[in-house]
Amino acid sequence: MDTASPLFLALDLTGVFAFALNGALTAIRVVRLDVVGVITLGMITALGGGIVRDIFIDDLPPATFSDWRYLSVAATGSLVAFLFGTRLDRWVNPIMVLDAAGLSLFAVAGALKTLEFGGGPAQAVILGTVTAVGGGTIRDVLVGRVPVVLRSELYAIPALAGALSMLVAIELGAAEVPAAIGGASLCLVVRLLGVHFRLEAPVPRSTDPDA
Amino acid sequence: MDTASPLFLALDLTGVFAFALNGALTAIRVVRLDVVGVITLGMITALGGGIVRDIFIDDLPPATFSDWRYLSVAATGSLVAFLFGTRLDRWVNPIMVLDAAGLSLFAVAGALKTLEFGGGPAQAVILGTVTAVGGGTIRDVLVGRVPVVLRSELYAIPALAGALSMLVAIELGAAEVPAAIGGASLCLVVRLLGVHFRLEAPVPRSTDPDA
Amino acid sequence: MDTASPLFLALDLTGVFAFALNGALTAIRVVRLDVVGVITLGMITALGGGIVRDIFIDDLPPATFSDWRYLSVAATGSLVAFLFGTRLDRWVNPIMVLDAAGLSLFAVAGALKTLEFGGGPAQAVILGTVTAVGGGTIRDVLVGRVPVVLRSELYAIPALAGALSMLVAIELGAAEVPAAIGGASLCLVVRLLGVHFRLEAPVPRSTDPDA
Repeated sequence: MDTASPLFLALDLTGVFAFALNGALTAIRVVRLDVVGVITLGMITALGGGIVRDIFIDDLPPATFSDWRYLSVAATGSLVAFLFGTRLDRWVNPIMVLDAAGLSLFAVAGALKTLEFGGGPAQAVILGTVTAVGGGTIRDVLVGRVPVVLRSELYAIPALAGALSMLVAIELGAAEVPAAIGGASLCLVVRLLGVHFRLEAPVPRSTDPDA
Repeated sequence: MDTASPLFLALDLTGVFAFALNGALTAIRVVRLDVVGVITLGMITALGGGIVRDIFIDDLPPATFSDWRYLSVAATGSLVAFLFGTRLDRWVNPIMVLDAAGLSLFAVAGALKTLEFGGGPAQAVILGTVTAVGGGTIRDVLVGRVPVVLRSELYAIPALAGALSMLVAIELGAAEVPAAIGGASLCLVVRLLGVHFRLEAPVPRSTDPDA
Repeated sequence: MDTASPLFLALDLTGVFAFALNGALTAIRVVRLDVVGVITLGMITALGGGIVRDIFIDDLPPATFSDWRYLSVAATGSLVAFLFGTRLDRWVNPIMVLDAAGLSLFAVAGALKTLEFGGGPAQAVILGTVTAVGGGTIRDVLVGRVPVVLRSELYAIPALAGALSMLVAIELGAAEVPAAIGGASLCLVVRLLGVHFRLEAPVPRSTDPDA
């Protein structure tokens, strides 16, 4: 899509890079894959959410295949994780921070693209959230885990809040760039606080471990 | 889609409600998720089959996103299950009955929508079955179970029989409403009898546990 | 699609048959399913890769549903595996050989179809690979295994090499038929050698079992 706005493209490609690193590091730690598996899982994590979004808004073939920047950024991120996986280990929880970054960038990028393709604000919020959680969900299904979007720790909620706050700001007359930065920052902060303080959403009474 | 027939819409939304309750109750019992996980799994179970059908017939974006009734009915069903999950427990096997209801309604609704979009009778039967088993299959994959459509107990067969009998009745000149009610009833009865009497489809000889 | 070239159709349907046998045999051995489960898993394995490709290139509804040959070949292959599963057992590793055959045929068929629908050579190579590994990936997810495309043994690489070599040959002026046969043969040989000699792609240092 030559018509994609530079803002959308910058957010989307940065999200692709963050999720590629995250997916590839997950492949190294959780399932111990070889180089092909690491790069494949990194690329699927990075591109899965955007592909689902593009199918839903009928932008086919997905940007992934009509715009080489997506494939090369995803491959590069995965390869970096493969080569420097051991050293990246020294960071504090890099997998989780990258996942939060990808989540935030995709939430606002997915909502912006839905608007560009003629979707209404409600559709934009929902598809922004789907874009954000899609890649990680496919990653978890492939490595045999219950997806993080189902397992607490405020995952879908920050994405929803980020996309929603951006949409509200735009409706109130804000320019797209600050609105997008604000929405992504809100999502990132809520997600990281949620992980740090182990904030959990309410659990149904019947599953209370003390019950 | 303003053009959807009232019959199709009634069947489809009732199926969405039944599957939302079912998916959310599954989330509460099987994987012990928090409120976000419960509602997410309920909504995916409720909307997954219809989204797959809409992608296949190229009705994009899926009705889910262009018609708010789908999202609100799915969210309401999931929330009801979250709030009353403990009390719903007293019903006889409510999860299974709701699943059979969703299966029956989606089998005929999916077949009707395929006809409306210009598909032939054979395509309608197949996509009705795919709509019916799709949501439950995604639910099972997400919670880490082999999907019920693969594990015996007559799951795909009743859906196929319901959609097929409706199509045959329509071809023979029956009106859509009684044909749809008849097809859904046939599916429901076969599915519930199958569960009650543990009727199983034949197993290949090589996997006979006595062999 | 009446417009599909005979070469594409022959490759694609043979691949469907090989993957149907493979998926159904997997269902019999790995998860011990009944006849409906065996045929369902066989058909999903056989048709999944092509459906994903058709969604990506926007050829909807997928050929599976507009061309009855796909469904009947997939159903026949699955049924053959169900009926003769025990006897097929005597072959040397039939599941793996069939998988390699399906992989090779789908890699070149998927690339050819992408070209027919106006995709460039790079898109053709990628979507050929996606077509080739898609059905087996869905099969593995449904039966609860980490997909073979992530677990070493040169799975995605031979598919990529087969599609790429065919594209290079066509660019250099070769006719489609020998180019396709050459590409599929290359993929098949590399895959079978990889399995036979347990050739593995490099593993990241941090996951070295001796480390």
